Amino acid sequence: MSLLTTEPDAGPDGEEPPDNGERHRLTAVTGLAALSLDAMASVAYGPEAIVVVLAAAGTHGLGFTLPVTLAIAALLAVLVVSYRQVIAAFPDGGGSYAVAKKHLGARTSLVAAASLVLDYVLNVAVAVTAGVAALTSAFPSLYGDRVWLCLAALALVTCVNLRGIAESARAFIVPTAIFVGFMFVLIGVGLLRTHPASTQAAAGHALVLADNASQVGALLLLKAFASGCAALTGVEAIANAVPSFRAPRARRAQRAEVALGAVLGLMLIGLSVLIGRFHLQPVEGVTVLAQLADASLGHNAAFYVIQFATMILLALSANTSFGGLPVLLKLLARDNYLPHVFALKADRQVHRHGVLTLAVVSAALLVFSGGDTNTLVPLFAIGVFVGFTIAQVGMVRHWCLAKDAGWRGRVLLNGCGALLTGVAAVVVTASKFTEGAWLIVIALPVLMATFETVHRAYGRIGECLGLGRIPAPPHRERSLVIVPVSSLSRLTSEALTAAASLGDEVRAVTVSHPDPEDRAALHTLERRWAQWDPGVELVRLSCARRSLGRPIAAYVREVAAAEPGSRITVLIAETEPEHLWQRLLHNQRGAVVAHSVRRETDAAICRLRFRLV
Amino acid sequence: MSLLTTEPDAGPDGEEPPDNGERHRLTAVTGLAALSLDAMASVAYGPEAIVVVLAAAGTHGLGFTLPVTLAIAALLAVLVVSYRQVIAAFPDGGGSYAVAKKHLGARTSLVAAASLVLDYVLNVAVAVTAGVAALTSAFPSLYGDRVWLCLAALALVTCVNLRGIAESARAFIVPTAIFVGFMFVLIGVGLLRTHPASTQAAAGHALVLADNASQVGALLLLKAFASGCAALTGVEAIANAVPSFRAPRARRAQRAEVALGAVLGLMLIGLSVLIGRFHLQPVEGVTVLAQLADASLGHNAAFYVIQFATMILLALSANTSFGGLPVLLKLLARDNYLPHVFALKADRQVHRHGVLTLAVVSAALLVFSGGDTNTLVPLFAIGVFVGFTIAQVGMVRHWCLAKDAGWRGRVLLNGCGALLTGVAAVVVTASKFTEGAWLIVIALPVLMATFETVHRAYGRIGECLGLGRIPAPPHRERSLVIVPVSSLSRLTSEALTAAASLGDEVRAVTVSHPDPEDRAALHTLERRWAQWDPGVELVRLSCARRSLGRPIAAYVREVAAAEPGSRITVLIAETEPEHLWQRLLHNQRGAVVAHSVRRETDAAICRLRFRLV
Repeated sequence: MSLLTTEPDAGPDGEEPPDNGERHRLTAVTGLAALSLDAMASVAYGPEAIVVVLAAAGTHGLGFTLPVTLAIAALLAVLVVSYRQVIAAFPDGGGSYAVAKKHLGARTSLVAAASLVLDYVLNVAVAVTAGVAALTSAFPSLYGDRVWLCLAALALVTCVNLRGIAESARAFIVPTAIFVGFMFVLIGVGLLRTHPASTQAAAGHALVLADNASQVGALLLLKAFASGCAALTGVEAIANAVPSFRAPRARRAQRAEVALGAVLGLMLIGLSVLIGRFHLQPVEGVTVLAQLADASLGHNAAFYVIQFATMILLALSANTSFGGLPVLLKLLARDNYLPHVFALKADRQVHRHGVLTLAVVSAALLVFSGGDTNTLVPLFAIGVFVGFTIAQVGMVRHWCLAKDAGWRGRVLLNGCGALLTGVAAVVVTASKFTEGAWLIVIALPVLMATFETVHRAYGRIGECLGLGRIPAPPHRERSLVIVPVSSLSRLTSEALTAAASLGDEVRAVTVSHPDPEDRAALHTLERRWAQWDPGVELVRLSCARRSLGRPIAAYVREVAAAEPGSRITVLIAETEPEHLWQRLLHNQRGAVVAHSVRRETDAAICRLRFRLV
Repeated sequence: MSLLTTEPDAGPDGEEPPDNGERHRLTAVTGLAALSLDAMASVAYGPEAIVVVLAAAGTHGLGFTLPVTLAIAALLAVLVVSYRQVIAAFPDGGGSYAVAKKHLGARTSLVAAASLVLDYVLNVAVAVTAGVAALTSAFPSLYGDRVWLCLAALALVTCVNLRGIAESARAFIVPTAIFVGFMFVLIGVGLLRTHPASTQAAAGHALVLADNASQVGALLLLKAFASGCAALTGVEAIANAVPSFRAPRARRAQRAEVALGAVLGLMLIGLSVLIGRFHLQPVEGVTVLAQLADASLGHNAAFYVIQFATMILLALSANTSFGGLPVLLKLLARDNYLPHVFALKADRQVHRHGVLTLAVVSAALLVFSGGDTNTLVPLFAIGVFVGFTIAQVGMVRHWCLAKDAGWRGRVLLNGCGALLTGVAAVVVTASKFTEGAWLIVIALPVLMATFETVHRAYGRIGECLGLGRIPAPPHRERSLVIVPVSSLSRLTSEALTAAASLGDEVRAVTVSHPDPEDRAALHTLERRWAQWDPGVELVRLSCARRSLGRPIAAYVREVAAAEPGSRITVLIAETEPEHLWQRLLHNQRGAVVAHSVRRETDAAICRLRFRLV
């Protein structure tokens, strides 16, 4: 699958200088390699998803692997042609969100956005579990710890992303090319054999074949088809990234899209032919792809190399979610559907929140699925198909409005695609409802409701702020600065200097409590204050309770009520120690006072740091 | 044990009004009940600690339970008399920290302080494990889950303390009285019997008796003595809390101290007589106290009531640490040995940090000990004895300096106490070194080093701040206010009004990035700014990187260098939404800018909140 939108300026760490040069842009060939990683990676779990469903009807059922794959390849062809049209119609790069926003209204675009968000999350979970399955197929002794391995792989990808790598689609060219190369070698060599070179990998593992081989019904085939369609995730990536291509953009992107379809289709068909030829059966703990590598190339170094290549490709595929989700969230935030913090540039902290949230939700899914790819793939497929369907329906609308030459044919094509993917979405949801699909059925509307609530709240805030209107002109008001004081030092002097510079009037306040120790301290302070004579009144606030911030906040409120024309600022001076660890020595009085004043008054809070050197 | 110092004004949540009335103070009788909880609770694990050590020498060894207990009772007598003297000498309440600080110098007082900190932590762990042992003695099926039960009990006590209960020594009177009452009934009824009423509780549990009963050597007796001394923890509580008594304070406190010694001594001796009479042997999973209740009162309701009473008393005893540790930390912070935040009044947040830290460290100890009281008791005893020894040595010094009538006898008494408790500390440390005492041997100096490092750092900070000297007088400087702006709204108008009131000069700055979308936004802003014409220059800061805070911080540094006589304030205006959840909608630009300005410049930061209504 591919959800990666490679905007030319979308480095998540905000460090990447902009580049408008054509030189760095993609040709059809490099574009194919750079943007097909997710689609190619889905070969690792797509055929398996078909085989596992058909295994419910025993060996007889497995015979339908090739026909089902051919049907999927046909859908792939429809999707590719349809996305060629999307590229032509949305040369600025249009995901299903963009298409739906333009042609199907805000609400439908939110369905598309919500399903994309779910896809990004599930993509991480699916890619990690499938990658670990490739590893445990090579090293069966690790199978028992697969959930831990998944969590470790997720932790690794998360850490890499927390460091804020400047990720580039270009970095994916080499691993994708190597993986695809290996797949074609595997298929080519396999087609030359009549018998498997080795069945060692699957030996000793439990078959997941049904004992009471039932009839192969239409429903089973439909389920197999729907599950297998998970292999199609990723064909939309090129259409999303048209701006990354070298001019003529649309033409090159279209060529890359067709090539992607051809390569993916050939791989799927080739693999399913081999599955039939070698009479492979799904076993627990060894992936179908691992069995194919075993059967075609033998249980030798090549087998292990393919497992590793698969694992690495899937890890990179998980990684694309970490790059892609922030871009989507930014688009949603710009349209006021998510907190604006997601659209904020240059905040590494915020990026971290996104990465960690994605990691935690994915980890929950990994644990929920027990590290099993085949539990997650159908959930993943639902979101992807919802997106496909919406994009296709949007395109139907597009052609109906445009009515240019040949529009009827195009409507037919996109309509057909919409129908097929829509049916697939419904079938997967219905057949897997109790096995986890309910999660998607709940999460989708919850996400949409969140988007709409946020949108409404921003609307109200914008109204309050008078956005879009010229505001009242600023004016000068009398400024009164209140300085909380607890002892007398150079810091106090510095604070009063700052206050005198900012305010027309300055008042120092100190809070006293009735216990003897405190009374003595107050007495000392007052005596030394008189001695110092800074020309500023020291107001004593008595407080029976052991409270510091509240009496100051109460005083601020009192002054504000007494002098309605004044603008009140509370100036809090703190030391900034030389060494970082000495921050622990701060008494936090400043924080306590700031907290109370902020919560209980409308005064501005000015914090001054006095550097100790 | 008791580490609780009941200062009259020490409510940890800062809500308790001060009370100087005599009416609420303690008499000898209520003082005994209120302050002896920890000492009484140690009856639940003290005798057990002796029996477990002696069991190493088989039934023959167990015969020495009474002699060892008598030796401990003798030490108790010495301690009580010695603490009567401490009360007379330190009528303001002197823990070992206070005595050491006055008579033995700063470094020794830090040893006392560090050992007190360790005691508070170990007190929680010991009380919780002993409380759970009382429960599992009554319900043996829970024994396997004892670590989880301990953690659950700890979580409960922690939650109660996080809520900030206003704890009062007075609340302990009733449970303490009930527990002591039950103990005397148990002892009285037991002395009337010649044979145990029931041995049901211990039936079916594994003996922890050594098979190859070795000779009873002096070392074993010393170890039993040292372990059993854990029963003495808590006799210092009354001496620490003299100010809580009604006048004549010292006299009443002394009476309460003697009464405490008498009650505790009688209970210990009574229980050990019963242990000998009923030939009790330590078994795994049932406490010695539970066996005694069984033997004396029978396996009926009384048995279960005693187990529950013991458990509740121990839980309250764990609770006292949560009240007492903050008081000690406050004293240390006031003497600059710990961050001042511990001395801060009225910060519930800080109190929470202390509670949570105590809970986490105690939980680690619970897991480390596997929920076994007898692993923790010796560790606990070390710290307690170090404190006893220091207090006694300090008293020796006190009498030597005072040289009032009869000082030689007092020196002899305190010296004798110091020797006995010092020997006990060394014996426990040596004999349990590999079983966990190393932890104390490491933690004690680490804590001391921490105290000293903090003390030195505060010394340097005080030097920098010119503490104790009259600082330079404050003066007025030219004030320049910089206002970051990203769009035009009522918030901008509000910000410029505030800035005009605070500054002699105001400059608005906006950061622009080179991507097209941003450029368009900047153009709109500049056009509307010109239209608005607020009389404030709008400075455009171009930044090739996607950064917001850094260009503003760089500009502030630049202005500061160009105008060294000006005081620069960065004014950040933000909206304060109506509903709390809408805080999530903040774009965090303010936080990002404040963070950069704070880290990279010396400018003051003024934050203004504009309430949306």
